[in-house]
Amino acid sequence: MSRAYNFSPGPATLPEPVLRQAQATMLEFGDCGASILEISHRGPDFIAVAQQAEADLRTLLSIPDDYAVVFAAGGATTVQALLPLNFAAPGQACDYVVSGHWGKTAIRQAAHCVDARTAASSEAGGFRDVPARADWQLSPDAAYVHLTANETIHGVEWRDAHLSEAVEAGNAPLVADFSSSIASEPLDIAKFGAIYAGAQKNLGPVGISVLIVRRDLLERSGQPRAPIFDYAAQARAESMLNTPPSWNWYVLGLTVKWMLDEGGVAEFARRNARKAALLYAAIDGSGGYYRNEVAPGARSRMNVPFFLHDPALDRTFLDEAKQAGLVALKGHRVLGGMRASLYNAMPEAGVQALVDFMREFQQAHG
Amino acid sequence: MSRAYNFSPGPATLPEPVLRQAQATMLEFGDCGASILEISHRGPDFIAVAQQAEADLRTLLSIPDDYAVVFAAGGATTVQALLPLNFAAPGQACDYVVSGHWGKTAIRQAAHCVDARTAASSEAGGFRDVPARADWQLSPDAAYVHLTANETIHGVEWRDAHLSEAVEAGNAPLVADFSSSIASEPLDIAKFGAIYAGAQKNLGPVGISVLIVRRDLLERSGQPRAPIFDYAAQARAESMLNTPPSWNWYVLGLTVKWMLDEGGVAEFARRNARKAALLYAAIDGSGGYYRNEVAPGARSRMNVPFFLHDPALDRTFLDEAKQAGLVALKGHRVLGGMRASLYNAMPEAGVQALVDFMREFQQAHG
Repeated sequence: MSRAYNFSPGPATLPEPVLRQAQATMLEFGDCGASILEISHRGPDFIAVAQQAEADLRTLLSIPDDYAVVFAAGGATTVQALLPLNFAAPGQACDYVVSGHWGKTAIRQAAHCVDARTAASSEAGGFRDVPARADWQLSPDAAYVHLTANETIHGVEWRDAHLSEAVEAGNAPLVADFSSSIASEPLDIAKFGAIYAGAQKNLGPVGISVLIVRRDLLERSGQPRAPIFDYAAQARAESMLNTPPSWNWYVLGLTVKWMLDEGGVAEFARRNARKAALLYAAIDGSGGYYRNEVAPGARSRMNVPFFLHDPALDRTFLDEAKQAGLVALKGHRVLGGMRASLYNAMPEAGVQALVDFMREFQQAHG
Repeated sequence: MSRAYNFSPGPATLPEPVLRQAQATMLEFGDCGASILEISHRGPDFIAVAQQAEADLRTLLSIPDDYAVVFAAGGATTVQALLPLNFAAPGQACDYVVSGHWGKTAIRQAAHCVDARTAASSEAGGFRDVPARADWQLSPDAAYVHLTANETIHGVEWRDAHLSEAVEAGNAPLVADFSSSIASEPLDIAKFGAIYAGAQKNLGPVGISVLIVRRDLLERSGQPRAPIFDYAAQARAESMLNTPPSWNWYVLGLTVKWMLDEGGVAEFARRNARKAALLYAAIDGSGGYYRNEVAPGARSRMNVPFFLHDPALDRTFLDEAKQAGLVALKGHRVLGGMRASLYNAMPEAGVQALVDFMREFQQAHG
């Protein structure tokens, strides 16, 4: 089939101009006589690519100068394993505010070396909301407070007042997993000790992650760890202590450049708001044929889980959606049902096509 | 410029058919309606890619059934950090036999959590040979013995009698870094507890590594570590505890398939022997104009460092080589001089072009 509207949660749809550039350089990159995939990460050609990607990311996200940017192989789970090793003393308290599956994962990656505390959780309510600020139980001695800005599976996002309350919550630095919502709207990074993201949702390709960290946190001694897992050393080495995932870094840079060319995060915030409003309106206006169970104030703009009134229709829905050029709508196995991921690279026309299909499906199978 | 002969040590030259396949699937992969770069790692299309890559790698390397294969983000240095965490008790002795830069790196990644001992080293001689077996000082209680099968920078390889002696050396399992020589010739993996490799030399793309480990070692408790760093768990999850570097895995699979189609490791062993013999003969026959300083019995077939008799000519050599379509010959900063990497994807015609150029250069600048 030709290219469909791809609602995959990640690896996710990429801008076609980015794919075409990656395609065009697959055999020859500039004057190298080789593919970008075949050249040394320490040569001038790749160094220029890497530095431009960081410069563009700093522009796109308005990253303050007192924050370092570390590019690393792997995804957010690896970052979650390295946070306590770098930023907490052995056995020190670390507070985790949990609004979904990935918040729990972050705790599991930390529990072997710190006192990883669940400061708050909305699990009892099925992760249909963020934990109310009033219910957070912060530790006075926490190394950091961690939250997941957007829960990709449960479709729960820290928004507006919730987010404002969260960033003012405590004295410990706030560390946030922005894997599935980074660059989706303007963000005041100075409110955070660190934010991080696997790139395969809003920043481009799979296989690389980004950590944006206030430089004073890099002075913490952390705890015994391999040099390759030392973020301060990686920052000093410009993320090249060892061979980085250079091709992935290159495609990340292309994606960041594309976002700048399209108008930056302010423009994507507008598009994302329109896309999410369109889909939630279709769900809410379906008379219960479709439903989303997340509290309105915590609904994710990026990942919209929804259920058909009759799960027996799920397979038919997915099959007919694919025939209509709409793919990867199957929900995560934890929740079942459907999920539409609406990252920056998903055009508004794709969401319009989805809601049109949903309406027609309801008419045909109602 | 058009595609040159690329002697980069890694990321390194790839087979053109592999690059063309990667290029062809950059916008649409099979019936997915999306690029291979945009689809879920948990969907049937990618699962099939991943499983085929493992099956083909098992065929290519004759991996015994009692060995697991783990694909992971990052390169060999990350594996070096995880070896002691998975296979040694806290503070346990681990023996490292060091024949170059990367053997020392492996020790540094382990030293924070085990007693990483230098059981032997050829550093005093400038890493121009492997340490003689008679000089190894093995620990009776070592968790494993580690060596670097081929030193990419120093051009020192465990070959023939040296390798035979090494694999019979001790009671502890032998763990070997094969980053720059995996799949270059037949290997009896059953002689090793584990071998590992960053893929960006002989196995294809940057950004992914492979660990081949005897399953009984996965039953060792190791020491406290994040779940994402647990090799046994990764093996059980078929390397998908989290989002793997799926695109890189795909290109690795294409490269492995290409090696099988070309005749497998036996055929590459013949080609690599011819390529190395051709280049070393050109160096040795130059009357001292070029020189390689490695002991003949430990000369690497994969990475050939060499020096011009007059370092003042280095820049001219590199410039004229590039004009002749021969790129990435600059030596590592640790050694200076030149280095030609002759991985499986380097055709014999490329090495012939290099030795022709070297002879002409000598005639012009002799």
